[in-house]
Amino acid sequence: MTGSAIFDGLEVGFDIPALPGMELGTIQTPCLILDLDALERNLVKMADEAKAMGVALRVHGKMHKSVDVARLQHAIGGATGICCQKVSEAEAFARGGMSDILISNQVRDPLKIDRMARLPVLGARISCCVDDLENVAALSQAALRHGATLHCLIELDCGAGRCGVTTPDQAVALARAIGAAPGLVFDGLQAYQGAMQHLVSHADRKAKFEAALATVRAVLDALTATGTACETVTGGGTGSYRFEGSSGVYTELQCGSYAFMDADYGKVRDADGRRLDEAGFENALFVLTSVMSHVRSDRAICDAGLKVLSLDSGLPVVAGADGVTYVACSDEHGTLSDPGGVLRINDRLRLIPGHCDPTCNLHDWYVGVRDDRVECLWPVTARGKAW
Amino acid sequence: MTGSAIFDGLEVGFDIPALPGMELGTIQTPCLILDLDALERNLVKMADEAKAMGVALRVHGKMHKSVDVARLQHAIGGATGICCQKVSEAEAFARGGMSDILISNQVRDPLKIDRMARLPVLGARISCCVDDLENVAALSQAALRHGATLHCLIELDCGAGRCGVTTPDQAVALARAIGAAPGLVFDGLQAYQGAMQHLVSHADRKAKFEAALATVRAVLDALTATGTACETVTGGGTGSYRFEGSSGVYTELQCGSYAFMDADYGKVRDADGRRLDEAGFENALFVLTSVMSHVRSDRAICDAGLKVLSLDSGLPVVAGADGVTYVACSDEHGTLSDPGGVLRINDRLRLIPGHCDPTCNLHDWYVGVRDDRVECLWPVTARGKAW
Repeated sequence: MTGSAIFDGLEVGFDIPALPGMELGTIQTPCLILDLDALERNLVKMADEAKAMGVALRVHGKMHKSVDVARLQHAIGGATGICCQKVSEAEAFARGGMSDILISNQVRDPLKIDRMARLPVLGARISCCVDDLENVAALSQAALRHGATLHCLIELDCGAGRCGVTTPDQAVALARAIGAAPGLVFDGLQAYQGAMQHLVSHADRKAKFEAALATVRAVLDALTATGTACETVTGGGTGSYRFEGSSGVYTELQCGSYAFMDADYGKVRDADGRRLDEAGFENALFVLTSVMSHVRSDRAICDAGLKVLSLDSGLPVVAGADGVTYVACSDEHGTLSDPGGVLRINDRLRLIPGHCDPTCNLHDWYVGVRDDRVECLWPVTARGKAW
Repeated sequence: MTGSAIFDGLEVGFDIPALPGMELGTIQTPCLILDLDALERNLVKMADEAKAMGVALRVHGKMHKSVDVARLQHAIGGATGICCQKVSEAEAFARGGMSDILISNQVRDPLKIDRMARLPVLGARISCCVDDLENVAALSQAALRHGATLHCLIELDCGAGRCGVTTPDQAVALARAIGAAPGLVFDGLQAYQGAMQHLVSHADRKAKFEAALATVRAVLDALTATGTACETVTGGGTGSYRFEGSSGVYTELQCGSYAFMDADYGKVRDADGRRLDEAGFENALFVLTSVMSHVRSDRAICDAGLKVLSLDSGLPVVAGADGVTYVACSDEHGTLSDPGGVLRINDRLRLIPGHCDPTCNLHDWYVGVRDDRVECLWPVTARGKAW
């Protein structure tokens, strides 16, 4: 195996970290690997749960940014649509053939609105969120300009304190404006509470959810009082989906991280006190890294630093690793504590990232692995698509 | 201006954030912008300082990962070569025409060593660091296999506790092995102390430097005693370059961040107690962001979160911003405190990132700006090149 091996015109090393058929030990590190068996089990499990609860599953593509993963979610994972946060992500998913895309965010820049209104001609049903009356006219004009229909959800601030309206009156006024605007269709409510997802305690998450649900109910009541139908109430993430799914109010989930999992979600406890990565979903995503320096006997240096691992939710966890821990991170290096002196130069380790979303966004490729052998290379289609 | 504007086959919006000629207000955000005037002044200033101190300037390409910035550093910034941390970065710079490239890091994986040994045929002088005798034979074999010469520097652990040998005996043994290995040339010492660069106090940095210098001197003495010539002693960063440059021992600097600067380096104080961003180098790099939600009067939400800003060195600082501060960061959003209520939807703000290196690595493009107008688009050539 030398650096000249070519795959679809891409050179191993410079362009891609691996070729199908390679063993783990020859993959160029650091890179993302996906345990395809674990991924498939996660997708099927969420599909089964959503089906049992009778809610739709709009998978969140902002996490993986991959058309291939999204296709698999539609094929075996019960996905009824996809959501994302940016117009550029929606462009990537629409070009990749996704037919029902929600931008679960505000779109305010005139050029961005124009770009979004061009997507329905690619065959995609496009929806976005609104939290400001001034936005409605701009969306309507763009829809008319391109002969498109844009579906709109009113975003509620469910406690995260970020985007979204906070009162039933604001929501009623927005629903009325959307309903009256040519080219727009009022679909319902975006009611996602991001701030509760990673709370470790089930009781804490439940309390936050109850508060969010009260906000949603108040808005629904106000809409009903004005005769406005609200077809969709969408929200819920990997840390909370059972609350929304069994609420009788939400019609759709927006889970993302469950597909790959990460170290931070792994710590979250369910109603019985079990960790989510033990009784819920499996770690399917890893950063594969190699030992590259081992001058001191109790400490090794690996090639995965903060340019391949997002640190916002803490350091990565070494999977199945014999007393080895990842203790410090710099730009291109990770420091591994190796008290037993078990590591050797070029040993491969699998790191569970602290936070999957921003870690995936650092990489160009998913190396799909089954039985310790590379099965596929999937581009991180919307990597870096932030505008 | 609509989404259909094309530049060299790339579509504004989907592929690129801006076109040359655009005004700031129409650039698609979030994206990186470079103040070209400030960048050029920073490059000239460092060139002048290195020249005055009589040391070479090997600019660190791991920071910007851009062939265009590297070319400018060679054209007007006194650069005598470039360094980087990964073979894939070296591949990008060699393909981009850089003729003298140091991988300031260990290269241990067999395929990576093979890839590195292919680069001299592209016309580049290639050097790398070594901290382990076992590495020498592998490097030599690859050099012979490709008819190449690889230059080797012994990496010293100067106090950062990461890679590098720690004793003169280890260094002497390595120098001997490299000198005897066909295809390898012993160039000298890699002596970079990363852990001192960002210490705010000048006295603290000086103390760390003195300790590093003592290590270097001890190794040089041992090499001299065995009759080994040591042509190069290379190291030094934006926080320490005046120490190395005036030491009479170092022959070459490896500064990177000075070109762009960031919020963390801005706080570093010089010998007179002045901030580095006031009396040293100017902020030339910004993340341009737009206000996208403003439901509450004292708080606005912008479109730049942790997928476009690395948080490892803290939150970004809002440039020139009328009481507005960036107070919280989530995946795709930034929360701005706006006590004066001065912000409006679609206002553009320039954010000074906490840490330039990993922030640049999140982006595909530098939007070069002069007089509030886009002058150029430069790809982040080696973005994501981590293996």
